[in-house]
Amino acid sequence: MTQIKLSGKRCILENGNMIKSVAIIGSGNVATHLAIAIFKAGVNIKNIYSPTLDNCTTLAKRVNAEAVDDIYKIERNIDLIIISIKDNAIKNVVEHLKDFNSIIVHTSGGVNIDVFDGYSQKYGVLYPLQTFSREREIVFNKVPLFVEANNLSTLIEIESFAKKISDTVIQADSERRKIMHIAAVFACNFVNHCYDISSQILRENGIEFSTLIPLIEETTKKITEINPHDAQTGPARRGDTDVINNHLKSISSSKYKEIYKVLSNSIADSYKE
Amino acid sequence: MTQIKLSGKRCILENGNMIKSVAIIGSGNVATHLAIAIFKAGVNIKNIYSPTLDNCTTLAKRVNAEAVDDIYKIERNIDLIIISIKDNAIKNVVEHLKDFNSIIVHTSGGVNIDVFDGYSQKYGVLYPLQTFSREREIVFNKVPLFVEANNLSTLIEIESFAKKISDTVIQADSERRKIMHIAAVFACNFVNHCYDISSQILRENGIEFSTLIPLIEETTKKITEINPHDAQTGPARRGDTDVINNHLKSISSSKYKEIYKVLSNSIADSYKE
Repeated sequence: MTQIKLSGKRCILENGNMIKSVAIIGSGNVATHLAIAIFKAGVNIKNIYSPTLDNCTTLAKRVNAEAVDDIYKIERNIDLIIISIKDNAIKNVVEHLKDFNSIIVHTSGGVNIDVFDGYSQKYGVLYPLQTFSREREIVFNKVPLFVEANNLSTLIEIESFAKKISDTVIQADSERRKIMHIAAVFACNFVNHCYDISSQILRENGIEFSTLIPLIEETTKKITEINPHDAQTGPARRGDTDVINNHLKSISSSKYKEIYKVLSNSIADSYKE
Repeated sequence: MTQIKLSGKRCILENGNMIKSVAIIGSGNVATHLAIAIFKAGVNIKNIYSPTLDNCTTLAKRVNAEAVDDIYKIERNIDLIIISIKDNAIKNVVEHLKDFNSIIVHTSGGVNIDVFDGYSQKYGVLYPLQTFSREREIVFNKVPLFVEANNLSTLIEIESFAKKISDTVIQADSERRKIMHIAAVFACNFVNHCYDISSQILRENGIEFSTLIPLIEETTKKITEINPHDAQTGPARRGDTDVINNHLKSISSSKYKEIYKVLSNSIADSYKE
């Protein structure tokens, strides 16, 4: 495999114009939001595939595509096939796409581009850095898209396509994409779990979670202006061990007690250095 | 000490009108934002105290108050004294206020009301649930204020005063306030530390933290509409151990590796039950 070196800079390539038709494999959260964005950008979505037709029929109708439950029913002259399914299912699907001449991409933060090795000539990655829930509308052109490809001409095509649906298209090889994904796990998945824990603690005591919303909103707004390291407040930041020990006594769940300790120690440590 | 039972409900008492003058002990983040809110509400701030005049002179000027560096220079006929200093310094200050007839409150989430026992006749707590940084302006009337007092007439006065600066005034005894404080540590302090870690991971790899902002904003917006438990996404939520192990290999800091493990296990556990 020839791997091209990616700069990590915003894309400056402007010459791609080949991708005029798309098929999407998958109908989950990412596939749904991506399909809607592509449809809105005026690109023709020919097929949406799911092993169970029921799962993709509604989405297919919404984006004027044909729902299929057999990969071999995807049209052969399609320009781009987007695989947007669970990470550990990608390899298996790729093996079934050997006979397609389309550009093939997956949308995963965590799967290396080498998953396509030996199965395709033109392939890459189109990773949207966002948390998608079916119920929530997303302003897709604000979602950063990380692109990677196995050769320059394919990269140009994927980039050009990505720019139709997002204002922020960034080149990143698999290693850089993994770093972004890890950062996203901390800044999104772990943050949300902290919200979940606080919500549970309040519920156990009959207090509404909504009371925390102004605090949560300010915590987030703050770091758009101040470096998170400088924005840190709270007992661990102040080194207030009396409050920390008092809190630990009041937390009933041993799991949450451990999280409280580990995170407080980490905060305290990071201001000692 | 007679402790009155507090409902945890929003206040409905309307008859307090005694507090027309205030002194503030402290000039840190909370004291500063509180002083500005009180000044804007048209209540007369007579004194701002700090052991070092330099620390409180600017703030005192801004709210038309006199800066003092000796607690005994605080005017004797003041209606309300607000102690807004480090938790572990409150006790010592309270001991110096024995001769004052004013209502005395502290603003801490973590300090029990019994810190005033034996030192005052009219006392309570005024806890603003917010993260305050000096550089950031706060819309103070959106900050929930938790109030507590040692008797009903004092509670009426503190509540009435609190309502002048905030739209959300909630009665909470010390135990409830502690619960709120613990929930706030998870939803604000720990969340911010997760932002800090992701920022460090990106910086080590030459990637701008600002790339994460759309993801961070959506993560926060989501939980104003969806229960955080239902909003959870990511590898731990999906039980994707391949991605988790792959991430753990890439995290160089043993401290952040531990945090990644503890939080991922906690997420996974909370969807098993």
